[in-house]
Amino acid sequence: MSNSSSSSTSQIWGGRFKSGPSAVMEAINASIGFDKRLYRQDIAGSRAHCKMLAKVGVITEADRDAILDGLAQVEQEIDAGTFEFSSALEDIHMNVETRLKALIGEPAGRLHTARSRNDQVATDFRLWVREACDRVQGQLQALQNAMITQAEQHYATVMPGFTHLQAAQPVTFGHHMLAYVEMFGRDRSRFADARARMNECPLGSAALAGTGYPIDREMTARELGFDRPTYNSLDSVSDRDFALEYMAAAAITATHLSRLAEELVIWTSAQFRFVRLPDELSTGSSIMPQKRNPDAAELVRAKAGRVIGDLNALLIVMKGLPLAYSKDMQEDKEPVFEVSDTLDLCITAAAGMIADLTVNVARLRDQAGVGYTTATDLADWCVRKLNVPFRRAHEIAGELVKMAEDRGVGLEDLSLADLQSIEAGITEDALACLTVEYSVAARASYGGTAPDNVKAQAALARQRFVDSEGNG
Amino acid sequence: MSNSSSSSTSQIWGGRFKSGPSAVMEAINASIGFDKRLYRQDIAGSRAHCKMLAKVGVITEADRDAILDGLAQVEQEIDAGTFEFSSALEDIHMNVETRLKALIGEPAGRLHTARSRNDQVATDFRLWVREACDRVQGQLQALQNAMITQAEQHYATVMPGFTHLQAAQPVTFGHHMLAYVEMFGRDRSRFADARARMNECPLGSAALAGTGYPIDREMTARELGFDRPTYNSLDSVSDRDFALEYMAAAAITATHLSRLAEELVIWTSAQFRFVRLPDELSTGSSIMPQKRNPDAAELVRAKAGRVIGDLNALLIVMKGLPLAYSKDMQEDKEPVFEVSDTLDLCITAAAGMIADLTVNVARLRDQAGVGYTTATDLADWCVRKLNVPFRRAHEIAGELVKMAEDRGVGLEDLSLADLQSIEAGITEDALACLTVEYSVAARASYGGTAPDNVKAQAALARQRFVDSEGNG
Amino acid sequence: MSNSSSSSTSQIWGGRFKSGPSAVMEAINASIGFDKRLYRQDIAGSRAHCKMLAKVGVITEADRDAILDGLAQVEQEIDAGTFEFSSALEDIHMNVETRLKALIGEPAGRLHTARSRNDQVATDFRLWVREACDRVQGQLQALQNAMITQAEQHYATVMPGFTHLQAAQPVTFGHHMLAYVEMFGRDRSRFADARARMNECPLGSAALAGTGYPIDREMTARELGFDRPTYNSLDSVSDRDFALEYMAAAAITATHLSRLAEELVIWTSAQFRFVRLPDELSTGSSIMPQKRNPDAAELVRAKAGRVIGDLNALLIVMKGLPLAYSKDMQEDKEPVFEVSDTLDLCITAAAGMIADLTVNVARLRDQAGVGYTTATDLADWCVRKLNVPFRRAHEIAGELVKMAEDRGVGLEDLSLADLQSIEAGITEDALACLTVEYSVAARASYGGTAPDNVKAQAALARQRFVDSEGNG
Amino acid sequence: MSNSSSSSTSQIWGGRFKSGPSAVMEAINASIGFDKRLYRQDIAGSRAHCKMLAKVGVITEADRDAILDGLAQVEQEIDAGTFEFSSALEDIHMNVETRLKALIGEPAGRLHTARSRNDQVATDFRLWVREACDRVQGQLQALQNAMITQAEQHYATVMPGFTHLQAAQPVTFGHHMLAYVEMFGRDRSRFADARARMNECPLGSAALAGTGYPIDREMTARELGFDRPTYNSLDSVSDRDFALEYMAAAAITATHLSRLAEELVIWTSAQFRFVRLPDELSTGSSIMPQKRNPDAAELVRAKAGRVIGDLNALLIVMKGLPLAYSKDMQEDKEPVFEVSDTLDLCITAAAGMIADLTVNVARLRDQAGVGYTTATDLADWCVRKLNVPFRRAHEIAGELVKMAEDRGVGLEDLSLADLQSIEAGITEDALACLTVEYSVAARASYGGTAPDNVKAQAALARQRFVDSEGNG
Repeated sequence: MSNSSSSSTSQIWGGRFKSGPSAVMEAINASIGFDKRLYRQDIAGSRAHCKMLAKVGVITEADRDAILDGLAQVEQEIDAGTFEFSSALEDIHMNVETRLKALIGEPAGRLHTARSRNDQVATDFRLWVREACDRVQGQLQALQNAMITQAEQHYATVMPGFTHLQAAQPVTFGHHMLAYVEMFGRDRSRFADARARMNECPLGSAALAGTGYPIDREMTARELGFDRPTYNSLDSVSDRDFALEYMAAAAITATHLSRLAEELVIWTSAQFRFVRLPDELSTGSSIMPQKRNPDAAELVRAKAGRVIGDLNALLIVMKGLPLAYSKDMQEDKEPVFEVSDTLDLCITAAAGMIADLTVNVARLRDQAGVGYTTATDLADWCVRKLNVPFRRAHEIAGELVKMAEDRGVGLEDLSLADLQSIEAGITEDALACLTVEYSVAARASYGGTAPDNVKAQAALARQRFVDSEGNG
Repeated sequence: MSNSSSSSTSQIWGGRFKSGPSAVMEAINASIGFDKRLYRQDIAGSRAHCKMLAKVGVITEADRDAILDGLAQVEQEIDAGTFEFSSALEDIHMNVETRLKALIGEPAGRLHTARSRNDQVATDFRLWVREACDRVQGQLQALQNAMITQAEQHYATVMPGFTHLQAAQPVTFGHHMLAYVEMFGRDRSRFADARARMNECPLGSAALAGTGYPIDREMTARELGFDRPTYNSLDSVSDRDFALEYMAAAAITATHLSRLAEELVIWTSAQFRFVRLPDELSTGSSIMPQKRNPDAAELVRAKAGRVIGDLNALLIVMKGLPLAYSKDMQEDKEPVFEVSDTLDLCITAAAGMIADLTVNVARLRDQAGVGYTTATDLADWCVRKLNVPFRRAHEIAGELVKMAEDRGVGLEDLSLADLQSIEAGITEDALACLTVEYSVAARASYGGTAPDNVKAQAALARQRFVDSEGNG
Repeated sequence: MSNSSSSSTSQIWGGRFKSGPSAVMEAINASIGFDKRLYRQDIAGSRAHCKMLAKVGVITEADRDAILDGLAQVEQEIDAGTFEFSSALEDIHMNVETRLKALIGEPAGRLHTARSRNDQVATDFRLWVREACDRVQGQLQALQNAMITQAEQHYATVMPGFTHLQAAQPVTFGHHMLAYVEMFGRDRSRFADARARMNECPLGSAALAGTGYPIDREMTARELGFDRPTYNSLDSVSDRDFALEYMAAAAITATHLSRLAEELVIWTSAQFRFVRLPDELSTGSSIMPQKRNPDAAELVRAKAGRVIGDLNALLIVMKGLPLAYSKDMQEDKEPVFEVSDTLDLCITAAAGMIADLTVNVARLRDQAGVGYTTATDLADWCVRKLNVPFRRAHEIAGELVKMAEDRGVGLEDLSLADLQSIEAGITEDALACLTVEYSVAARASYGGTAPDNVKAQAALARQRFVDSEGNG
Repeated sequence: MSNSSSSSTSQIWGGRFKSGPSAVMEAINASIGFDKRLYRQDIAGSRAHCKMLAKVGVITEADRDAILDGLAQVEQEIDAGTFEFSSALEDIHMNVETRLKALIGEPAGRLHTARSRNDQVATDFRLWVREACDRVQGQLQALQNAMITQAEQHYATVMPGFTHLQAAQPVTFGHHMLAYVEMFGRDRSRFADARARMNECPLGSAALAGTGYPIDREMTARELGFDRPTYNSLDSVSDRDFALEYMAAAAITATHLSRLAEELVIWTSAQFRFVRLPDELSTGSSIMPQKRNPDAAELVRAKAGRVIGDLNALLIVMKGLPLAYSKDMQEDKEPVFEVSDTLDLCITAAAGMIADLTVNVARLRDQAGVGYTTATDLADWCVRKLNVPFRRAHEIAGELVKMAEDRGVGLEDLSLADLQSIEAGITEDALACLTVEYSVAARASYGGTAPDNVKAQAALARQRFVDSEGNG
C-alpha cells in the first residue's frame, strides 16, 4: 500500500500472498456494493478516532488536522456523487482510507493505529442501525397520527366488529383504528429499547483483544453519542445483537402492518365495500377495465415475508459462529438495509392509505347489525334483568338467533311474543338492546367501544404518542 | 350447559348447532392437550375477576366465596394430578369451569359474566409468558455466574484468540468467558424489557368490544400484578406481541448458546484439546469404544434451530390476520412452551458444562503462540519505536511471518539479524514483543485482554450481574 | 452391558466413563420420548440385518432364529402397549436391544455386529419418512376427490372470480375447485419424487466408514424394499436430505391448504356468504350466541406456520454441520413427526370441509356480476367487432364502467345510447356480452372457465388423480 | 395509451383513475428495477404468443411480422444497453410494449389480445426459473468433477474420520470427497425433477378465466419448449410452486455447501492444518500481518442463511393468499433472483476451493490415528477371533483405550501383555489391527472407506455424474 500506487486491497494484507483475488473471490468477498451506505458513519467514526488519537498523543495535532480535512473532503466527494468506489478495495473502510491517502499522504496511514476493520465496521454499522431506530420513530408516529385523526373523526361511526372474520359485535371505526395505534405504540417502544441497549461504543476493541496504545475509549464513545464504551473487546467485534434486535422489532412491526393491509384488502372488496383507498395508492388492470386494485395494501401485506425472511437469515448466519469475528458476519448488512428500506416504504404507504382513506359510513352502519351482532346484548340483558347465569342467557339468545335465521330476518325483526316464546320473562325493554347504537354505547368499560370512551382514548393517544415522545 | 349433565363443549355454543364436533374437529380444535399448562394462570385470572365482580356488585359476596372455594378445590385437584381433563371440553377454561360447576353449581355460571374466552386466554397466556421471563433471569444469571467464576480463575490463562477460526492474537481464557457474560447480560436486559412492556392486563376486554357491566379493570390488573389495564379492548384480544417478543429474545439467546456450544465442540476435538467436558455431559459410542462425544454441546447448538423455527412459526401465524381474535392464534402456545422448555434445558446444560469444564491450561499456553499470533505486536512495536505508519509496519511484520513460515519456525525463533534483514531499524527489545505474555499484558485498553483488566472486569461483571438484579 | 443387569445406557459406551449422565444430560440427550414412534421400522431394520448376517455367515442360523423370535416378541409387546420404555436407555434402538437381550440372552449382543446406531437410525427414519410419503398420497387423493366431486356438481355454477380480492371476471365454482386439484396434484408428484430419491438403504454403513464384516448390503436393501444400497457410507450417516425434502414438499402443500382455508374464512363471512361449512367443522362462541366460527379453516390456515417453522428448524440444524454424524441431527425427528401429524390433520379437515360444503348457488349467481366483472367482455367485443387494438377497447370499457359507477348501477343497466355516447360503433349485440352466463361460456380456451370446459376437465382430473395412481 | 404520448402506466388502467400514482406508490409498486432481468423471457413469450395469434387468425400476418421485427429491435436495444427503462411504466411487460408501440405503432396494441399481465408474468418467470434449473446442473457438475478429481488422487490418503467432530475411525480423503459428490448428485436430481414439473405453459390463461379468442395453447407451449399447456387458468396465474420448489432445492444445496465450507474453515485452522486454500480464495487482515483467512469458505457457509431466508420469505408471502392473482406475488422475483445469484457464486467458489485445494497428506496421515481411532478394529478383531458378542468386545477395547489414555500413549504403543491383561485371549495378530492402514483397508463393505472401494466408487461417480447427464 504505502509505496505503491496500486489500488488492490490484497496489498493491505501485506506481502505474504502470492496471487491476488480471483474474480469469484472479488465477487463473493467485496462488500463495497452495499456497505457504501455506511460512508457517513465510517467517516464519523474515523473523525472521532482521530481526535482521540491526537488527544492522547498517539498522533500529532498536525496529523489530526490533515486527517480531519481529508475526511471532510472525502465525505463531500461521496455526498456529491463524484467519488469513485472500487470493488478491488473491498469495503467502505478501504475505499475511504485509500482516497484519504491520495489526498493527504502519509498521515492517512496513521489513522488505522489502534483499531481494526473489525471494530471499525462494528462501530459504523451500529451507528447506522441506531439512526434507523430513530428514523422509524418518526415514521410510526406519522402513521399513528393518521390513525388517531381517523379515530377522532369516526369515534362514533358504527361498524361490525369481527372475530374469526365473522360478525361478532358492533364496534366503532375509531375504536378499530386505536387498536392499531396501540400496536404501533408498542413497536416504537421496542425500537426505543433496542436503541438504548445498542448504545455502547465498540471502537478501540481493535481486532479482538484490545490494543496496547493508550487510547481513551470514553472519549470516542462520547464523540459518537454513545453512552459508554463496550465492556469486552472480544464481544465487541463478534456481537451483532443490535442488528438482530432491530430486525426482530421490525418483524413484529411488519406483522402489524400486514394485518392492517389484510383488512384494507378485505374491506375494499366488492362484498365488503367498507372503505375506499385513495386513487394514488390503487392500480388498475391491463385487461379488466373495471378493476381498482389495492396494490399498495397487498404489497405492504406481502413484504412482511421479506422482513421475517431477513431476520431469519441473520439468525441463521450467527448461529454457531465461534468467537470472535468471522467473515460470515459480513452477511449482516444487506438484510438490515433491506428491512430498513422495506419498513420505510411500508409505513409510509400505510400512513398514506390511512390518511386518505374514504370511510363508507353508510355501508358500515348498514352492515353493523348484519350477522346478529347484538345477540350478546340480549344475553347480557337476561343476566341483568332476569338474574340467570350467563351460560343460560347465552342459550336463550342462541335460540332466538336460530329463530331469526330460520325466518331469514334480523334479531330486531322479532316480536316481543317471539322473544317470550323462548323465555317468558323477557320484557319490552329488551328490544331496545337490539340496536347497534345501544350495543356500542353500552360497552363503556375501560378500553371498550362506547363512543365517549373512544373519544377520550383518542385524545389520550394523541397525548401519549403524538404530542410527546411517545414511545414508552 | 346449565340443565344438562353432558360435558360436551359444543353446548357452550348454545343450541344453534345441529351436530357436535366430528373426530377430526376435536383433534384439530381442542387445545387442552397443551393449554392445561395454563391452569394456575387461568385460576388466578378467575380469582381476580371474581373478586372484582363482587366488589362492583355484579355478583354477590356469597357467590364470590363459593367460587373462590371452588377454584381452590379445582387447583388442588390439578396440583395433585387427580383432575380429569376432557378433550371434549376443548380448553383449560372450560375444563376448569365445568369442574367448578360440578363442585358449586349455579354460581359457577356467573363467573363468566363480563369476560370471554378471548380476554381470558390473553390474560392467562400473558401471565405464563411473564413468569417465563422471570424464570429465564435466574437461569441466565446462574450461567453468567459459572462463566464469571471461570474468568476469575483464568483471568491470566493465555490461549489463542481467533478470528475466522484462524489464530489471531493471544487472549486470556477469562477474557473469552467474559465476552459471553456480556451477551447473556444483554439477553437478560431484553427479557426484562419484554416483561415490562407486556405487563398490562387484558382481562375485561370481553370478546372484543368491552362490556356493559360496571367492571373495575384497574382492580383486576392490580390483583394480578399488572401495571395497568390495556388501553384498547380490540387490541387486547388480538395482540400476541408479548409471545413474539419473548420468542425473539429467546432466539437471540439461543444463538448465543449455539456459539458457545460450537466452541466447546471444536475445543474438545482431538486436534484442539483445549478443554474437557464433564463426564456427566458427554456420551460414548455404541460402536467406537474410544469415543467421548460432546453431545450436550451439540444439542445446545442444534436446538437454536428449533427456537428460531418456533419464532418463525408464530410470526407466520400472525401475519395478515384481521382483527380481532382469530382461531389461528391458538397456534401461539405450543411454540412458546417449546421455546421455554428448550431454553430451560439449554441454559441449564450450558451452565453445567461451564461450571465443570476442565480447562487444559498447558495446552492453551502451548497453542497461544502457534500461528504467529504475536505478529501484530511486532507491527505495533515498529509504529511506536520506528514511527512508521501502521500500514508499513504491517508489511514488515508480514514479511517476517513469511520468513518464519518458509523455515517452519515460530516468530520467536527468528534472530535479531533476521529481523533487521527486513527492517534495519529493529532493535533487540523488539524480540520481547514476541512472547504471548507480553502480548496479552500489552493490551490494556479498556475492555482489552490484559490480565489485570480481565480481573477487574470479572469483578465488575460479578457486581453487575450476580450481586445485583443485573439485567439492565 | 453384557454381564450386568443394569439398564443404564452409559454402559453401552463401555467402562471409560466415571460417572453416569446427570439429570439434565438425560433430559437433553434421551430421544426415546419421541423416537419410539420408530419402533416398527427399527425392528424391521434389525430383522433384515439379522437375516443378512446369517446369510453371509457372520451369525449362525440358530442365533438368527433366536433373534427373529425375540424381535417378534418385542414388537408384539410394543404393539400391545405392555413394553416399558426407559429414558435411561436413551433411544429406541437400545430399548429394543435391551429387551431382546432380556428375552434371548447372548445372541442379542451379536445383532449389533457390522452396524452402528448411526446407520441404524438413518435406516429407521428413512423407512418412516418413506411411509409418510405413501400415506400423504392417499390423503391428498381423498381431498382431490372431494374437490372433483364438487367440480362435477358445480361445473356451471357461476361466481365472481377474483384477482387482488377484487371482483375480476365471472368464473364457475367447479373451475375454482379444479385449480386446487392441480395444486394438490403437484404436491403428490413432489412427494412421489422425494420418495423415489430417498429409496436407498444406508444400513451397513456402520459408524461412518463401512465395516470389515463381509456383509451383503444389496440383500438388506432388498429386504427393506429399497431400490439399492447407498453409495457412500460417510454420506449415509450424515445425510438428512430425505427429511428436508419431505418437509419442503409438506411446506408447499401446507401453503396450498392455507390458501383454501383463507378462502373458506372469507367466503363464510356475513359479507360474502358464498358457502356454509358443515356444523361438525364449525364452532360457536362462549359469549356471542349467534357466532358460527370457521375454526377448522382458521386452524388449517394457521398450521402452515408450524410446518414452515419446522422445515426452517431442520435446515438450520443441518447448516454448517461437519461430516459425518453429529448429535445435532437428533433434532431431525420431532419436526418431521410434527409436520406429518399436522399434514394428516389439515388434509383430513380440508377434505371434510370440502366434501360437506354447502355452496350458496343463488348468492354466488347474485354476486357474479357485482363489480362490473363483464367489462372485459365488452372490451373483447370491441376488439372483435370494431377491430380496435385491445388497449383502446380497454379504455372504452373503462369509461363505461365509470359511467355506471357514477350512476350507481351495473353495466347491464346501461342503454345502447349510453354505450354509443362513448363509442359510436357499438351495436345492440354488445349488450349480450354483459351477462355473466355469456362471459363464462365465452371463455372456452383450453383451461378456461367455460362450463363445458370445466366439465371435461373435471372428468380428466378424475381420471388423472383418482382412478389412477395419479401423482405424475 | 393509444392516443397519448404520455408514458405513464396509470393510463394502461384506462380513464377511471383521477390521479396518477404518488411517489410512494411508484416506489412500492414498480417492479421494473428487478423484473427487467426477465426481458429475454418476456420477449420470447410475446414472440410465441404473436405467432400463435397469427396462426389462428386473431391478428394478420402483416401485424405479426411488424410485431416480430419490433420485438427483435427491442431485444437488441436491451442487449446493447441502450434501452431506457422507465419506472413509471411499472414492469418489464409495459416497458417492452411501450417501446414496441413507439417502434411499430398500432399493431403493438394487438399483441396484448388474449393475454393479461397475469399469465404473461407467470410465463416469463417460469421460463427464467427453468433456465436457472438448467444452469445449476452445469455448475454442480463442475463442482462434482473437482471433487471426483480429488477423490481419484486421494483415494488412499488416510485421514481421521469424525463423528461429533471427535476422531472416530480412519477414512480416506477420497471417501470424504465422494460423500459430497453424492449430496450434490441428489441436488441435481431435485433440480431436474423441479424442472420437469414446472414445464407447463400458463400463457393464454389471461387474467384468470381464460379467453374467448380461439387461441391455440398447445402451439404456444411448444414454441416455448414447454411439455404442455397448464390445465387450469385460475391455477396458472395464482401458482408459484415452481419458484418455491426451486428455492427449496436451492436451500438444501446451500446447506450442503455450508457443511463443506464449515469443514474447510475447521481444516485450515492452526490446530487442524489438514488443507490449504488457494491464495486466490483467502484474504489477510488489515491489522494482523500473519492472517490468512478462509473468507470464501466462511461466506459460502454464511450464505445458506440468505437462501433459507429467501425460501422462507416466499412461503410466507404465498401462505393464505386467496385465488387467483394477488399483488403480493410480485414479491416472488427478488428472492428467486437472489437465490440464483447466491447459488452461482457459492458453487463457483466451492468448485474453485476444491479444485485448487492443497491437501496436507503428511499431516492427515499423522492425525489419522490420533484419538484411538482404531479401537473399533480391535473390538471387531475380538468378535471375529474370540467369538464374543460385539457389546463385550466394545468393553474390552474401551478398557484398553482407558489404559492408553492414562499413560498418555496411543493404542499401538500398548504391548501384547497389556492387551492380555484385559482379555487373556488376545493374540499377537491383534496388534496389526491397530494401524490406520489396516483399519481403512478392512472396511471393504459396499460404500466403505477401503482404498480399492473408493477408487472404484470414484470411477463410478465420474461415469454417473460427469460423463453422462448424471442427475438421476
